[in-house]
Amino acid sequence: MVVARLIERKRNGDALTPDEWRTLLRLYTEGAVPEYQMAALLMAICFRGLERHELTAMTDAMCDSGIRWPRGAGSRFRVDKHSTGGVGDKTSLLLAPLLAACGVAVPMMSGRGLGHTGGTLDKLESIPGFRTDLSIDTAQAQLERIGVALIGQTEEIVPTDRKLYALRDVTGTVESMPLITASIMSKKLAEQLDGLVLDVKVGSGAFIPEPERALELAQMLVATGEAGGCRTVALLTAMDRPLGRACGNALEVREAVAGLRGEAPGDLMEVTLALGAEMLLLAGGADDQEGAIRRLRRTIASGAALEKFRDVIVAQGGDPAVLDEPSRLPTAPVIAEVTAPHDGRFPPLDPRRLGEVIIMLGGGRRVAEDTVDPAVGLEVLPRAGQRVRGGEPVIRIHARDEAGRKEAEMVLARELESAWRRGAEPLPLVIRRVTATDDGGGR
Amino acid sequence: MVVARLIERKRNGDALTPDEWRTLLRLYTEGAVPEYQMAALLMAICFRGLERHELTAMTDAMCDSGIRWPRGAGSRFRVDKHSTGGVGDKTSLLLAPLLAACGVAVPMMSGRGLGHTGGTLDKLESIPGFRTDLSIDTAQAQLERIGVALIGQTEEIVPTDRKLYALRDVTGTVESMPLITASIMSKKLAEQLDGLVLDVKVGSGAFIPEPERALELAQMLVATGEAGGCRTVALLTAMDRPLGRACGNALEVREAVAGLRGEAPGDLMEVTLALGAEMLLLAGGADDQEGAIRRLRRTIASGAALEKFRDVIVAQGGDPAVLDEPSRLPTAPVIAEVTAPHDGRFPPLDPRRLGEVIIMLGGGRRVAEDTVDPAVGLEVLPRAGQRVRGGEPVIRIHARDEAGRKEAEMVLARELESAWRRGAEPLPLVIRRVTATDDGGGR
Repeated sequence: MVVARLIERKRNGDALTPDEWRTLLRLYTEGAVPEYQMAALLMAICFRGLERHELTAMTDAMCDSGIRWPRGAGSRFRVDKHSTGGVGDKTSLLLAPLLAACGVAVPMMSGRGLGHTGGTLDKLESIPGFRTDLSIDTAQAQLERIGVALIGQTEEIVPTDRKLYALRDVTGTVESMPLITASIMSKKLAEQLDGLVLDVKVGSGAFIPEPERALELAQMLVATGEAGGCRTVALLTAMDRPLGRACGNALEVREAVAGLRGEAPGDLMEVTLALGAEMLLLAGGADDQEGAIRRLRRTIASGAALEKFRDVIVAQGGDPAVLDEPSRLPTAPVIAEVTAPHDGRFPPLDPRRLGEVIIMLGGGRRVAEDTVDPAVGLEVLPRAGQRVRGGEPVIRIHARDEAGRKEAEMVLARELESAWRRGAEPLPLVIRRVTATDDGGGR
Repeated sequence: MVVARLIERKRNGDALTPDEWRTLLRLYTEGAVPEYQMAALLMAICFRGLERHELTAMTDAMCDSGIRWPRGAGSRFRVDKHSTGGVGDKTSLLLAPLLAACGVAVPMMSGRGLGHTGGTLDKLESIPGFRTDLSIDTAQAQLERIGVALIGQTEEIVPTDRKLYALRDVTGTVESMPLITASIMSKKLAEQLDGLVLDVKVGSGAFIPEPERALELAQMLVATGEAGGCRTVALLTAMDRPLGRACGNALEVREAVAGLRGEAPGDLMEVTLALGAEMLLLAGGADDQEGAIRRLRRTIASGAALEKFRDVIVAQGGDPAVLDEPSRLPTAPVIAEVTAPHDGRFPPLDPRRLGEVIIMLGGGRRVAEDTVDPAVGLEVLPRAGQRVRGGEPVIRIHARDEAGRKEAEMVLARELESAWRRGAEPLPLVIRRVTATDDGGGR
C-alpha cells in the first residue's frame, strides 16, 4: 500500500475501500504511517468527507485498535447515552442510576470538561473519594453486580482515537463531521452496547451550533451506530442556554441528586426524561414514550434511582453521605448574586460566556492539563422565558476568592445586559428525534 | 503564532498575511513547525489555493531560506529559461551558450530527470568530465568570465523547497498550482535574475497536459516572477510529442551540438529560437521578435554559439573534443530500428510512453536514487505530420543490451500502432505567449 496514493485518491474525492481504511489505521496506530501522512489525509477528509461505507470502516478499524468492554455473562440490555457537550448538562448523572434502577445495564465511559463544556468525570470526582479510573474488568464486574459503572476512557480503549485526536487538535482538522463521528462512535461501539442514545446539542453553546449541521451530525452518528450493530437514536436538544440551574462540578452533582429525588428544575427533568425514555424504549422497558416516562418518574418517586446512585458511589469509593448531606460536597467560600438589569422575560444566557466564567473561576479547563476546582460555579436561578423583575437575583456566583467573584460579576452583568438586548426566544428543549430511518449522508 | 489557527484559517478559505507566511516558513525550515502541521496546511492549500499576495510572500520566504546567486560586479542583464519538463527537450543546452554569445548573462540552475521527463544536469554529465556541482561562488566567477554557468541546485539554495518537496511527495500534495509555482519561482528568484523565460509544456507529455490549466500555471508563474522583481514571460509549447529527434542524455547533447551548428531538426530550432528571442528581448538585445531571431541565427551561423559552449565545457571540466568528434560521447552497443506500421502522416508519439521506454532502457529515473545510463535512448526520425511509408524506419533504439532492445521494440511497435489509430493532429509548436498583462489568479 502506497499511502501517498491513498491520500491523493481521497484528495481527488474518491472513496477508499474498507480494507484500505483498516490497513491504514492499523499501520498508523503501529507508527508505520507517519503523522504527516495522516495529517494530510485528515485535511483531505475535511474537504471531501467520507462515504458511508468509509466512515463505517474507519470507525470499526479505530474500535479494533484497542480492547472492548467485555460482554460478560450478563444478559441485560446494554444502553449508554452520549452528549456532544454543553454547560450545566448533568443528565448523565441522573440517567445512569435511573436506567440501571429500571434493570437496564449502563456501561458509561465519559470524558472530562474542556473549554466551555463540562465533563461527567469531573463532576463525579467532586464526590469525595469517588474514583473513575476503574480497570475495564473491574467496571464489568460492577456492571454485572449493580447494573452501572461510570468510568473514564482507559488507555486500552480505542488508542487510535487518542493518537488521531492529538493530531487533529494541532492540524486544524477537529471540525470535520465524519472525523467527529468516527471519534465518538468508535468509543461508544467499544462499549459493546445494544443501544445508544445521543444527545446532539443545538444553539450557541453547542459544539455545532447550527440546527441543520447538528441534524446532519446526528444522522451520521445514528447511521454509523446502526452500521456497527448498535441500535441508535439521537435527540437534538437546546444548548442556547445552560441546562438546569447549576453549572460547575459539585453544584451539578447537588442538582443531579435533587433530580433523583424528583426536585430538579423543570428544563433539566424534561431533557433527562426525554433521553431516558429513548434509552428505556431501546431496552424494551416500555411500550411507548409516555409509558417510558411514567416508569422513569415512578422509579424516581420510589427512591430506587437515588438508591442506585448510592450503590454506584459506594462501589466506586465515594462518600455516599453526600446524598443526604449535600454540604459534604466541596463548597466555595465566596458567594454573591447578580441581579436582573430590567424587568421582563429572562432571556437565554450564552452557555459559552457562562462556560468562560466557570473557567475564570477555576472550575473548567482551557487546556487538557489544567486542574479544576470542584467547588466553584454558577447557579442560574430563573429558567429562560420566566418573568423576572429588575433588581431580582438571577445568577449566584460560587467563587474561590474575591478576585474571582469580582471578575465573574463584571462579565455576568455584561452578559445579562447583552442577553436582554438580544432578547432571543429560547429554543424548544427537545427539538427533534433522529432515528435510522432518517437519511444521513456521509459528508 | 498558533500554527493550528493558521491552518484552520487556510482551511476555511481565508488568506494568511505575508508576515504569517514568512514566520511560518522560517519556523518550518528551522524544524520548529513539525512536518504534520505543514502537511495539513499543504493539503488545505491544494483545496483553497493561495491569494496572489500569499503566493508572493510564500515564494519570497522560501527564497529567503537560503543563499542567493550573488550579483557580483557584472553589469550584464541576467536571464534564465526554465521548462516544466518534457521528453527530448534539450533547448537549455542550446539557449545557454547561444544567449551568452549574445552578451546576456545566463546563470542556469537545472535539475535531474525524474519519471518520463529528462533533466539538463543528466544531459550535461554525459559529456566526459563535465561537472555541474560547482559552488555558487565558482559559478558566479565563471558567469562573470564567460557569461554562462550551468549548475545543479546546491544544498544552500532554497533549502525550504527541498524540505517541502520531500513532504509533498509523500502527502499527495504535489499537484497544487500555487505550490508548484512557489517551488519553481523561489529557485529562479534565488538566481537574482533580471529576466526569466518560462517554457510551460502542454499536451500528453506535459506535467499539466490540459491547455487551460497550463495557461493558468503560466499566468501564476509570470505574476509571481514579476512580483519578485524579475521580468517574466512564458511560452506555452507543444509536448504532445517529443521535441527534436533525440531522446536520451548523450543523444540529446549530440543533437544540441548539431543545433549550435545550425543543423538541428526544424521543430527543435523553432522552439529554441522562440524561447531565445524572448530571452534576448528581455535583455534588450533586439527590438522585436524578428530582429531577435535574426540575431540568434547569426550568432549560430558565425560559430560564436558553439564556441561559447566549448568555453562552458572547458570551464566545467568537460572534454571539449566531443564538439568535433561526437563519437567521444557515450554510445550504446545495441542499435535497432522500428518501422512505420502504415503509410501516412507520422502521428505525434506519446512522450510519456517514450519516456517510459527510456527508463526501461536505463536512461531515466523511476525514483530520485536511480542512476542513469547516458548512452541509451531513442531517435524519432520523422517529425510529426511528415509523410512516411509503411516499413520505413521511424524510431532508432540505442540500447545497452539485447533484452533492452527487445522490450523497447515491443512497446514502441505498440505505441506506433496506437498513435496511428489515435491519428491526432500535432499541436502548434508555440501555442501562446503569456506576459504580465495577462491576468493570472492565485488559485
